[in-house]
Amino acid sequence: MKTGVIPEKPFVFVIFGATGDLTGRKLIPAIYALAYDNLLPENFRILAIGRRDYTSETFQNMMEEAVREYSQKCFMEKVWERVKNGITYINFDFVADKDGYFRLKHALDNLSETGIHNHLFYLAVAPGLFAPIVTELKKNGLLSEGNGWKRVIIEKPFGENLEKAAALNNILTDALPEERIYRIDHYLGKEMFQNILTLRFSNNIFEPLWNRFHIDHVQISIAETVGVGSRGGYYDNTGVLKDMVQNHMFQLLSIIAMEPPVKLDSDYIRNEKIRVIRALRPFPVSLSEREIVLGQYTGGIVNGEAVPGYLQEKNVAHGSKTPTFAALKLWIDNYRWQGVPFYLLTGKRLNRRNAEIVIQFREPLGRKLYNDYCDARSNILAFRIQPYEGFYFQINAKKPGNFYEMIQANMDYCQTTTYGNNSPEAYEKLILEAIRGNNSLFTGWDELNASWYYIEDLESKINRNSLHIHQYPAGSVGPEAAVRLIENDGRSWWNMYDSINFCKERGSINENI
Amino acid sequence: MKTGVIPEKPFVFVIFGATGDLTGRKLIPAIYALAYDNLLPENFRILAIGRRDYTSETFQNMMEEAVREYSQKCFMEKVWERVKNGITYINFDFVADKDGYFRLKHALDNLSETGIHNHLFYLAVAPGLFAPIVTELKKNGLLSEGNGWKRVIIEKPFGENLEKAAALNNILTDALPEERIYRIDHYLGKEMFQNILTLRFSNNIFEPLWNRFHIDHVQISIAETVGVGSRGGYYDNTGVLKDMVQNHMFQLLSIIAMEPPVKLDSDYIRNEKIRVIRALRPFPVSLSEREIVLGQYTGGIVNGEAVPGYLQEKNVAHGSKTPTFAALKLWIDNYRWQGVPFYLLTGKRLNRRNAEIVIQFREPLGRKLYNDYCDARSNILAFRIQPYEGFYFQINAKKPGNFYEMIQANMDYCQTTTYGNNSPEAYEKLILEAIRGNNSLFTGWDELNASWYYIEDLESKINRNSLHIHQYPAGSVGPEAAVRLIENDGRSWWNMYDSINFCKERGSINENI
Repeated sequence: MKTGVIPEKPFVFVIFGATGDLTGRKLIPAIYALAYDNLLPENFRILAIGRRDYTSETFQNMMEEAVREYSQKCFMEKVWERVKNGITYINFDFVADKDGYFRLKHALDNLSETGIHNHLFYLAVAPGLFAPIVTELKKNGLLSEGNGWKRVIIEKPFGENLEKAAALNNILTDALPEERIYRIDHYLGKEMFQNILTLRFSNNIFEPLWNRFHIDHVQISIAETVGVGSRGGYYDNTGVLKDMVQNHMFQLLSIIAMEPPVKLDSDYIRNEKIRVIRALRPFPVSLSEREIVLGQYTGGIVNGEAVPGYLQEKNVAHGSKTPTFAALKLWIDNYRWQGVPFYLLTGKRLNRRNAEIVIQFREPLGRKLYNDYCDARSNILAFRIQPYEGFYFQINAKKPGNFYEMIQANMDYCQTTTYGNNSPEAYEKLILEAIRGNNSLFTGWDELNASWYYIEDLESKINRNSLHIHQYPAGSVGPEAAVRLIENDGRSWWNMYDSINFCKERGSINENI
Repeated sequence: MKTGVIPEKPFVFVIFGATGDLTGRKLIPAIYALAYDNLLPENFRILAIGRRDYTSETFQNMMEEAVREYSQKCFMEKVWERVKNGITYINFDFVADKDGYFRLKHALDNLSETGIHNHLFYLAVAPGLFAPIVTELKKNGLLSEGNGWKRVIIEKPFGENLEKAAALNNILTDALPEERIYRIDHYLGKEMFQNILTLRFSNNIFEPLWNRFHIDHVQISIAETVGVGSRGGYYDNTGVLKDMVQNHMFQLLSIIAMEPPVKLDSDYIRNEKIRVIRALRPFPVSLSEREIVLGQYTGGIVNGEAVPGYLQEKNVAHGSKTPTFAALKLWIDNYRWQGVPFYLLTGKRLNRRNAEIVIQFREPLGRKLYNDYCDARSNILAFRIQPYEGFYFQINAKKPGNFYEMIQANMDYCQTTTYGNNSPEAYEKLILEAIRGNNSLFTGWDELNASWYYIEDLESKINRNSLHIHQYPAGSVGPEAAVRLIENDGRSWWNMYDSINFCKERGSINENI
């Protein structure tokens, strides 16, 4: 994953779906940020393709507004001019208008004559369009690497189920090899995600503790305060397991649980991550709420505002049983993790917004051996991914004073404080890594395949057991049953009401998702 | 070491050497602080014994000035009145005036009639007076525990060498049993000293790392900016090895290196500490500067002020070869520590003032395995004892940003910040523990015996090898040879020029020694 400060080669960034939400909110601001930080070559161009009838100038102006609104960076006329002048808008229908690809090819050929041979195709389009677009690109020879690299970035979701994902993947890999397909999972673009790898393997203090002999259990949680918003139609067909667990949460799970890779290259890291997913113990055929609890939000109050329930959201089917909340207990059947439960919790419209991993160590031996330490609690190591970035050990210490009193002290490192709110946005980082040809921050097909397989098996068991979907009011901690799931095991969720006090008094919050 | 909030029984604090420096600077302010914190019983008295001819009132006024000047606590008339009204000054010569003990007995008998039966004798006198005073106390029946406890606190130094210390100890233990003898080592009264015990044994994350498989070496340093001051005569007969290494540094060494005790009681803890000292590998007969470097300060600048060299200090013998600086490499020959050097460094008139323990872990494996981690450094765990109190892991992390850059991050806990500058002073804590009858924070004879034995063996080897005493200018890091001692082993001193940035920007400094 190491990358030096080598100026990248000239390239063209080709956006399919240029008039969509993502382009204005994320992609162009990311390109602007990279230009701002001087990480792009002198010679780069943007071909923005959409179905609406804009001139390049209109589109440029729209993007200027988007950058002013969404970029984390200051707006600097000079930087924006550079980006803007490279933008050409091309108008065609990705499916119906075969001629459009010819015009695209023509444009790329022209740029090639000026010395820009590398092409990064970003498919910011509905999932149904991935296959047709890639097929047409192939047909027009736009994916063959004659005199420059050709790469394709694919937005999620990659298929709706394993079967469709596999079919899609077949079409894609017919058109170009796996290593040139960059499947987005924006959690992989987060600073802390990458830092976990560094922490685990560049230090000597963590690895000796990183196993069943020292760890009692692991908690991974991604709590959201938002609802499904405008994505009701998509979400209703997907649900929380595919929208969050199968991708983001499994990525966090596998980076925490994996064995040290042979090398830090993409292939080796992916291999280790897949081994974790493959070692996940299948859920029992007869499923109960000791293993998984599902929920769906009803109307309630979030951040002081009344919000509708899931069933009232736009494009959600009447009486839908799609879960928006899940709490699961997973087991990894390998030598390192045998007997260590991994508790996952995620949901929309919860009382808090955070993403974190908590590793709880075994009960302190001192508590059993020494009367004085009866108040000792289990140590935890926590990684905060958002809104703050950082990590800490929570340990037992003696409170200064003339009486012996035990306190919980945090040995912490708050990255947000130390470096301010300067972490690159996930899209900025991911686009840069794609330009660099580093696909270790993207999801490989084998990973996807293994996690789809696992989640579909779970979903079929959920259906067969007619698992109850608990209702929980928006703005709550989620269903009571999720609390019981972990408390039945004599454990409890960390940070259910609020995050452990961390960074707060010290630094500013990182509000990027 | 746990102590509940049980009101202590009435007692008399008997100070021998009441007009000495220690009484005004430490003892009475400590009693005042304990009264301030309401840790003393309603009924307590102070009998202050000195050779000068004061009235109780004169002495009380002197002590009021001392409390106003030296106490960490605010001066509160009401609290001071309580302490003051309990003070009676008694004037007699501890050696010549046998009648004085009779008067003391009389005073104590009178107090006993009012219900105060417990006596704490504090010998704040020259070491030569310990034996005569204790003998007289015994003779007058003042040490027999008829209707209350009788304890003796002895200031350091406890003898000048093993032979004399053993002789003194025989006299003391003839007079009262070992468990009622409280030998002061004020390092044992420091908050962090006690916290190290808690940290090691009430948490599960430290112990797995605490051995030769994970630790490369340990550094213990106590750097002082002061010179010998008014103690030149005493110091010149003692030197740094007996003044600092044999007591304070060996206490730090043994609390870090010891095995978990069976119980947290004084006897059990002392037993484990003694086992560490006994496991210290004797220095080789043919001693070299690869094992030990000694130094003596010459004139120089400390904190911007010109200060004299050691040989110019008052009461230092002409051409004295007494060392004021030592750097040593020790080995503990047991299963836990075989092959792990313990480097000790201490000196007067150095460029910095701090006391700390640094545990350096082995070279990160990741540095060997992964190219990306070539900048990874060895992790350290540091305990800061003064001026700041706290502890931290220094680890490798990824610097947030679009380029892969490794940084050293501190996962820290700064006690000084969290609890302010509120740690009890060592004397306050030690006197309280003596009142409570807890002698785990005092040095036992077996410990003393073992450490004397080890240091005397070392000193005789130093003499036989005529080891060079390096001169170093006041205000410097110490002799160059001390740097070579550790660098010859491919290691280096931490914090030689300044402490690792820690707490500084966050909290106030704890200036207590």
